[in-house]
Amino acid sequence: MELSETLPLGELAAAFAALPVFPLFDTAYFIVSVLYLKYEPGAVEMSRKSPFASWLCAMLHCFGSYILADLLLGEAPIGYFSNNSSVMLATAVWYLIFFCPMNLFYKCVSFLPMKLIFVAMKEVVRVRKIAAGVHHAHHLYHHGWFVMMATGWVKGSGVALMSNFEQLLRGVWKPETNEILHMSFPTKASLYGTVLFTLQQTHWLPISEANLIFFFTMFMIVCKVFMTATHSHASPFAPVENLICPVLFGSLSSGHPSHHHDHHGASHEVSHPPPPPAKSKEELNEGTRKRKAKKAE
Amino acid sequence: MELSETLPLGELAAAFAALPVFPLFDTAYFIVSVLYLKYEPGAVEMSRKSPFASWLCAMLHCFGSYILADLLLGEAPIGYFSNNSSVMLATAVWYLIFFCPMNLFYKCVSFLPMKLIFVAMKEVVRVRKIAAGVHHAHHLYHHGWFVMMATGWVKGSGVALMSNFEQLLRGVWKPETNEILHMSFPTKASLYGTVLFTLQQTHWLPISEANLIFFFTMFMIVCKVFMTATHSHASPFAPVENLICPVLFGSLSSGHPSHHHDHHGASHEVSHPPPPPAKSKEELNEGTRKRKAKKAE
Amino acid sequence: MELSETLPLGELAAAFAALPVFPLFDTAYFIVSVLYLKYEPGAVEMSRKSPFASWLCAMLHCFGSYILADLLLGEAPIGYFSNNSSVMLATAVWYLIFFCPMNLFYKCVSFLPMKLIFVAMKEVVRVRKIAAGVHHAHHLYHHGWFVMMATGWVKGSGVALMSNFEQLLRGVWKPETNEILHMSFPTKASLYGTVLFTLQQTHWLPISEANLIFFFTMFMIVCKVFMTATHSHASPFAPVENLICPVLFGSLSSGHPSHHHDHHGASHEVSHPPPPPAKSKEELNEGTRKRKAKKAE
Repeated sequence: MELSETLPLGELAAAFAALPVFPLFDTAYFIVSVLYLKYEPGAVEMSRKSPFASWLCAMLHCFGSYILADLLLGEAPIGYFSNNSSVMLATAVWYLIFFCPMNLFYKCVSFLPMKLIFVAMKEVVRVRKIAAGVHHAHHLYHHGWFVMMATGWVKGSGVALMSNFEQLLRGVWKPETNEILHMSFPTKASLYGTVLFTLQQTHWLPISEANLIFFFTMFMIVCKVFMTATHSHASPFAPVENLICPVLFGSLSSGHPSHHHDHHGASHEVSHPPPPPAKSKEELNEGTRKRKAKKAE
Repeated sequence: MELSETLPLGELAAAFAALPVFPLFDTAYFIVSVLYLKYEPGAVEMSRKSPFASWLCAMLHCFGSYILADLLLGEAPIGYFSNNSSVMLATAVWYLIFFCPMNLFYKCVSFLPMKLIFVAMKEVVRVRKIAAGVHHAHHLYHHGWFVMMATGWVKGSGVALMSNFEQLLRGVWKPETNEILHMSFPTKASLYGTVLFTLQQTHWLPISEANLIFFFTMFMIVCKVFMTATHSHASPFAPVENLICPVLFGSLSSGHPSHHHDHHGASHEVSHPPPPPAKSKEELNEGTRKRKAKKAE
Repeated sequence: MELSETLPLGELAAAFAALPVFPLFDTAYFIVSVLYLKYEPGAVEMSRKSPFASWLCAMLHCFGSYILADLLLGEAPIGYFSNNSSVMLATAVWYLIFFCPMNLFYKCVSFLPMKLIFVAMKEVVRVRKIAAGVHHAHHLYHHGWFVMMATGWVKGSGVALMSNFEQLLRGVWKPETNEILHMSFPTKASLYGTVLFTLQQTHWLPISEANLIFFFTMFMIVCKVFMTATHSHASPFAPVENLICPVLFGSLSSGHPSHHHDHHGASHEVSHPPPPPAKSKEELNEGTRKRKAKKAE
C-alpha cells in the first residue's frame, strides 16, 4: 500500500479513475476526432460525394484504437461495433459536424474555449484506453511485457497509427511518411505512457493504477490544451530526447564511415530521393490552415 | 407466419433458398470471377510470367468474401481454404480460363448467352452469402446490428472491397480510387441487401428469410443480366439516391461557405490535385474494351 | 518404418531435428535478418532519425514468419512477442549491428567466413519453421492441405512476403513488384519445401519428418552458402522450371492471340506502363552494392 493512498489525493485519483467515460467523455472524444477529420483536405467534398466513405472514415477516427488492439490480439476487429449506442453516438456526431444546417454544430464545437474543454476530455479517454489496453493484454499474457506495451500504445494512439490506410480510404496516398517514422505528440506520449502503465502493471513502478491514471491524464491535458490553444508543435519530450538519443543512438557522422562498407555491401548511403521532411501531419495541417487564413483576409 | 407463406410462392422461395450452391452455382461464381480477372490489363501476361501470382489473384477473386468476413470476425482468414474440393474446383476453372489450348474454354464461357447464365447463377451465390454472413454474425453478436451489416456486406461484395490490395498483388497501384469511395453496382447492392437481411434477422422487416432471399436474388439477376447484356452502367438505385441524398447529405455549395472556415482551420477546400473521376472500375474497363474493339476493326 | 531409419543417418537426422534452435541458431537468424535490413538504402539514416521505426523494422525482419502465420490462422499476430527473451535477444542484435561503437559488431558478423556460418544456421531455423508451420496447421485443419502449405510457406519466407509493407514502414513504396510476383530464392524454396512437408505430413511422401528436415536443410545450406559466397542469383530451380513451366503454363505468343479477344473484352494487352523487370530484390541490392564498391575505388 503506497503512502499516497492515505492522502485525499489518493481518493481523488480513485474517484477520477472510476468516472464513467460513456457518454460525456466519449462524446468529446468523438467530437475532437471528427473535427480533425473535417480539417483534412478534401474531407468535406468527400462527405458530399461519398457520404458512406466519409462515415467509415469517421468510424475509423472514433474507434481506431479498439480496431487496432483487437487486430493485435487476434480478436474480432469489428467487435467493438457491437456497442450499438457508441456507434450511433459517433454517427450522430459525424452527421452534425458535416451536415448540420448553417454548419451550426461545427461552429459551436470549434469555438476555442469549447474546443479546449473537448480536447481535455479526449485526453481523459485516451489515458483510460491505454490503461485498459495494458490491463487487457496483461490478462491474456501475464508476462508479455512487449504485448502489454504494444496494446496500450495502439489504444492510446488510435487511428494515427493506421493513418496511411485511413488516407487511402479517402483516396490519398502519402507513403513517404507515417506516424511511426515521424511521431506526432499524442502517439509519442501514448508510447511513453504505455511503458509507464506496463511498469506499473508488472509492479516495477511503485504507484497505484488510479494515481498513475490521474497524474498522466493531468500531464496530457496540460500539454494538449496548451498546444491546441497556442497552435504550438514543440514537443515537451524534446529536451530529454535531445539529451538521451545522441548518446544511445549516435549520429550519422560518427562511427559508420560509408566507404568502409562498400566491399561488404552495406548500401546504407541514401541512394533514393531525400528523406521526407521531419514535419508531422499536425504541423503540415497547421501550415495549410494559416495559409488559408491569410488568403481569406 | 406471414401471408405469403401460405401461397405456392412461399414453397418456391423455400425450395430456392435450400438449393445447394456447390458445385454448380459455385462453379458459375468462379467462372465469372476469373473472367473478370482475365479482363484486367496485364492479367494474361502475368499468368505466363508469374503463374503462382495469377493463381493467388484468382483465389482472391473466388474466395475474397470468405477471407474478408473471417478477417472482420477475428477468425482464420485462410479457414475456407480447408475446403479442398472448392479450392481445387476454383483452381481448375482458373487453369482452363487462362491456359486451355486454343483458348477454347474461355471462348465457350464468354459466349454471351452462356455468360449471362453464369452471371445469373453468380448472383444466386452472392445473395446466399449475404444471408449467411448476416446469420453467422447474428449468431456471434445477437444485437450487433452494425456487425451483421458489415459481415453481410463483405460477403456480398467479395474481392471488390480489397481491390486496391488485389491490384497490388498484380503490381498495380491506384490509390486515387477504391470501391468504398466509388461503389460499383454489386458493392452498392450488397450494402443495401445486407441492411434488408439485417432488418429481417432482427425481426424489423416482416418477411421470411427464404422469401427475402428469393426476391432479392430475382432483383439482382434482372439487374446484372441487363447490365451485362447491354454493357450499361446506369445504376438502378440512382433515381432514389438522387432524391434522398441531396436532402440528407446536402451539396457542396449549400451551408458550408469555404471562407467562413479559414479562421478555424477547416481545410476542406480541395488543395490537392482534382478528385478522381466518378467512374467506377467497371466503367473504366468498359471504355478500354470498346477502344480495343474499335482498334481491331 | 522407413528403411533409412535403421541406418545411422536416421539417428543423425533425428538428433539434428531435435537440436534446440534457441539461442544459438535464433541468434544467427536475427543477425542475418538485421544485416539484410542494414543493407537497405536509407536504413542507417532511419536508425539515427527514427530509432523506434528502425527497431520495429528489425522486429518484422526477425519475427515476420510468426506474425504472418498467426495472421493466417486467426491467432494473435503479436503472440510471439510474449517470448520476452527472444525479443530482447533480437533487440540486442539490432542495437549492436546499428549502434556498436566503431561499427565493430557489424564488421565482425559481415566478415565473409562468419557470415557464411550465420547464413547456414539461418537455413536450419528456416526449415524448422516450415516443418513447425505445417505441423501446427495440420493440428488445426487435419485435411486442410492448402492451409498447411500456406502456413509452412509464410513461416519459411518470413518478412519477404510482407516486403511492400515493411518498406512502407521505412517510407519506401514500390508497388510495381512484390515477392509473390517476382520470387526470390528463399521464398521459392520455402514454397517447394512446404509442399514437400505437407506431402510428408499427409503420408503421401514416404519419408520421416526428421529425415526430410535433415535433407532439405542440407539442400538449403548448400544453395544459400554458395549464392552468398559467389554473389550469384542463379536459381537452382531454373533448369527444372524452364522444362515444366512452358508446358503447363504456355507462353505469351501461343494460343491466345490478342485480336480475338477485343470483341469480348479481354483487355490482356499491356495497356499500362511496361511490366517491372524480372529482377528480384536480391538482384537489385546486389547491383547497388557492386556500383558502390566501384565508386569507392
